[in-house]
Formats: sequence, structure tokens, C-alpha cells
Amino acid sequence: MKQIVIVGLGLIGGSIAMALEGFEDYELVGVVRSDATRDYAVAHGVCDRITQDAGAVIPTADVVWLCQHPGGIAAFLNQYKDQFKAGALVTDVCGIKTAIMEAARVLPPEVDFIGCHPMAGKETSGIQNAEAALFQRAHYIITPGPDSSAEHVDLMERMARHMGFRDVVNTTPEHHDAIIAYTSQVMHIMAVAVCDDPDLFGCKGFEGGSFRDCTRVAALDVPLWTELFSMNAPALCKVIRNLEDNLRAYREVIESGDTGALADKLTWSANRKRKMNLE
Amino acid sequence: MKQIVIVGLGLIGGSIAMALEGFEDYELVGVVRSDATRDYAVAHGVCDRITQDAGAVIPTADVVWLCQHPGGIAAFLNQYKDQFKAGALVTDVCGIKTAIMEAARVLPPEVDFIGCHPMAGKETSGIQNAEAALFQRAHYIITPGPDSSAEHVDLMERMARHMGFRDVVNTTPEHHDAIIAYTSQVMHIMAVAVCDDPDLFGCKGFEGGSFRDCTRVAALDVPLWTELFSMNAPALCKVIRNLEDNLRAYREVIESGDTGALADKLTWSANRKRKMNLE
Repeated sequence: MKQIVIVGLGLIGGSIAMALEGFEDYELVGVVRSDATRDYAVAHGVCDRITQDAGAVIPTADVVWLCQHPGGIAAFLNQYKDQFKAGALVTDVCGIKTAIMEAARVLPPEVDFIGCHPMAGKETSGIQNAEAALFQRAHYIITPGPDSSAEHVDLMERMARHMGFRDVVNTTPEHHDAIIAYTSQVMHIMAVAVCDDPDLFGCKGFEGGSFRDCTRVAALDVPLWTELFSMNAPALCKVIRNLEDNLRAYREVIESGDTGALADKLTWSANRKRKMNLE
Repeated sequence: MKQIVIVGLGLIGGSIAMALEGFEDYELVGVVRSDATRDYAVAHGVCDRITQDAGAVIPTADVVWLCQHPGGIAAFLNQYKDQFKAGALVTDVCGIKTAIMEAARVLPPEVDFIGCHPMAGKETSGIQNAEAALFQRAHYIITPGPDSSAEHVDLMERMARHMGFRDVVNTTPEHHDAIIAYTSQVMHIMAVAVCDDPDLFGCKGFEGGSFRDCTRVAALDVPLWTELFSMNAPALCKVIRNLEDNLRAYREVIESGDTGALADKLTWSANRKRKMNLE
């Protein structure tokens, strides 16, 4: 029987373990640090087996999912770089890819690292919030290395289908990071920036769906997002600056009192949204 | 039998008509302009009676809901100001209140105008998208006039409960408009500003829940929102400027490379969101 080792059973790692249940002829082994996570995983049947000793299972794993924060992934790769099985596929779940692909260069050539970003999440963390359905209809982005094998890319795609992802997007780390600064990171920056408004606590009773939606992600995991934002700073700051400019342009046309110009500008933006046609 | 007249059966007016079905001993009469809306309303049993002649029902109405755009409401009040029944309650559904309360001053003193803003909506319009459940758990904001009667405020509250609103928030037009600039209008400005980013069409396959949530309202009704933004320009521009400042502050701390300062700032914002504790 082949073996998938999932390192870190938090919200994402735990959900991957649940979603991968029954995948082909693989045994699922979870690696955890805390006793609490171990007890929860055992009690809820997450993975076929749970261990707190990564060194005991890494050498036999055919597939390793690294589900820690970015810094934890880099540290893990450094610590275990000589213990992976030759021919193993190693992947991760991190929201930035250039820095992770760089960190994976410590691996020997016989270990294949394919970066992965499952575009799903929740405003909570920990295995107690994990669920097999987390990835339904989400995008699954992969960034293979220059020497990644077609067999491993195919294996990544089969796992994605089993977990319920909508599609597999295969791209470069650099392109991923530039686009994700826009579609994910700046959404989180906006959410916290909105909560910095002095009127925040006075607005209860006046919020509708758009406010709840926008600020949903503001109660974020600070150590994780500090790493993600910092490791993608140039791309992210470019997108923030664009947004500042676009907001200022709207403010100026509203301040001008020229309602025809405002209507034209709104028409232009709304048509872009309709053309985008998400879902 | 008493009579409620609902003028304009679009998304909001149509939903109000459906949600008010069975309210106490009132007959529901819908006033529509187009044949298409009339036919839809008749075919789907929206209201007890439909007419295209407002002048025929306004004089007998005990309650009148004005469910047009702001400009349409002002024009309607001007045209029919002398035809309302003495003692009638007139209300509206408009997302700004100061300008509407001002427009309602054309009414004679024996007609009671209480402004209303049902904090619910959808990114679609028209009676074909109306639904009785639209207001479930939404806030219902009312702005009584200086001479509004306690009986009419009570009637507004009974209608709100019948329609399924979560609560009734009673406030002044000025306070409503200042806060709504923040909780609703700037959310729409952000959504269109995000769609103005040059990367918009390149980001398909990379969007997650936060992006879909934020941009959901970008395909907005341009004539309506042009009016709403323009009629609340000073309050809205102040909130946009705050948001520009808050975004720039985040950009500057990310650009500085000071991860400790970034973590502190994220902690502060995330704690505000947790303290806000919506839902």
C-alpha cells in the first residue's frame, strides 16, 4: 500500500485529510504536534494513522503534503531534506508560491516538489473547523518545478478531483503570486482597512450583506498573514496602490458633482464585472 | 377593509408586496407602470389588486409604500401631494434619507411621512427576482418626521415584524446617511474600484470566496446608485478618504519590511473585527 503523509492537521491540512479519505490505494498518515490535535484526529477518524514523529514516516511516504505556515514549511524542508524517499512527490498548501518553490530547492533532485494553493478557506482555524467539503467548487492551483514529472502532475490532478475541486490551474509561481496579491491578499487588506474606520462600532444595526461579506475575513490569523503579505510585498503593494488610485478617482468624480461622469464611470466598472461573469 | 398601496413593483417593492401578504386586515394594491410588470404580478398573485393608475388609489390608501428610485419618489410626492388621504402613512425604501425627508416636506401636515430603509437587496433587479424571504434577518431602519404619530411608528414596526426583519432601528435621516455611507455605499464603491484593476480579466481561476464576496455588488444598477452616491456625496467622500488613508497605512507598513509593526497593525484591526462580532 502506498502512503500519503499530511504534515499539520489544522483547518487546511485536516480538511485535506478528510477530503482525501478513500483516495485510491493510499494509506493516509497525519503528522501532528499537539496532543489536542492528535486526540481530536483519532477521535474523529481523521487519517488512517496519526503520529507525532515526522521522522518516522517521511522516509516511507510516496506523497507528502506540507500544511504548515510558510515559515514552518521552509523549516521542515530544511530539517528533513535528506530523509524523503527517492521518487516522492512533496507538495504544500501555501498562499504564496515563489518563496516556497525557492525553499524547496534544498531538496535533492530525486524528490519532486510541486507547489499547490487550494483556493479555499474559512475565517476560523484548527482541526475542529476542518471539513471534507471545504474544497467543493474551489480552484486548485499548482506550480510544478522545471523537472516535475508528468506522472506527479497527473497524481496532483487526481487528488484534486477526489477532493472535489472545481478545476486545476497550472501556472508559474511568479504569475500565481502577482495574481493572488489581487484576488486574495488585497481582499484581506481591504477587510482590515474597513475595520479601522472610526465609525466601526457605531454601525451595528446599519450593516447589510455587502458589509458582512467584505469584513468577513478581517478576523484573520495574524502570524500567517504577516508572513504571506511580507513574502509577497512588491506585488501586493502594487495592487494596494492601484486600489487607492481607483478609490480616489471615484471620490473625485463624486466630489465634482458631475453626475453624468459618475454614471459613465459606474457603467464602465459594472460592465467589467458583468463581462467577468464569475460563477 | 384598510388599504396598503405599493408604488413600484421592482425587486424591493415586489418583495415587500410578497412579504406583506396576509398582513392584518389590509388589502394590498400594487401600482405599476409597465405591462410586463403588471402581467407578472397578476400571474404570480403579487398583491390583491394591480393598477397602472396611481391617481385612482392614492386617495383611498391608508398606507403608501414608495418603492421607486430617489428621483422618482420626489417626483411622485410632488405630483400627488394633494391627493393623499388625511391621516395616511406614507413611507419609502430609499437608501438615503435626508434628501427624501426633505422631498416629503411638500406633503400637507395631515399626511405622515416616515422614511424607511430596508437593509436588504440583491445584485439583480425587477419583480422576477423579488421574493418574500428577502428581508429575513435584515435590519429595518426608520426615520420618523418631527410630527410622526406613535401609532404610525407602531404600524411600521408591525409591518417589519410581519415581513421577517430582524429588528427595527429608529434614527434620524442625518445619522442614517452618515453611517450608510460607510456600511453600504463605500462597499459598492470598493467593489467597482476592485473591478477597475487592469488584472481583472486575468484573474479567472485564481479567485476565492473573499473576491467573489467583495465584487458581488459591482454589477450595480447605475441610475439608482448614481443618485444615491450623489445625494450623499459629502458623507460618502469622507468615508472613501478614510479608506484610502487606511489602505495607504497598510501599504506603507508592508513596504517598510517591518514585520513586527505589520503584525501589531493586523492584530489591532483583527481585534476590532472580533469585538464588532457581527451575527
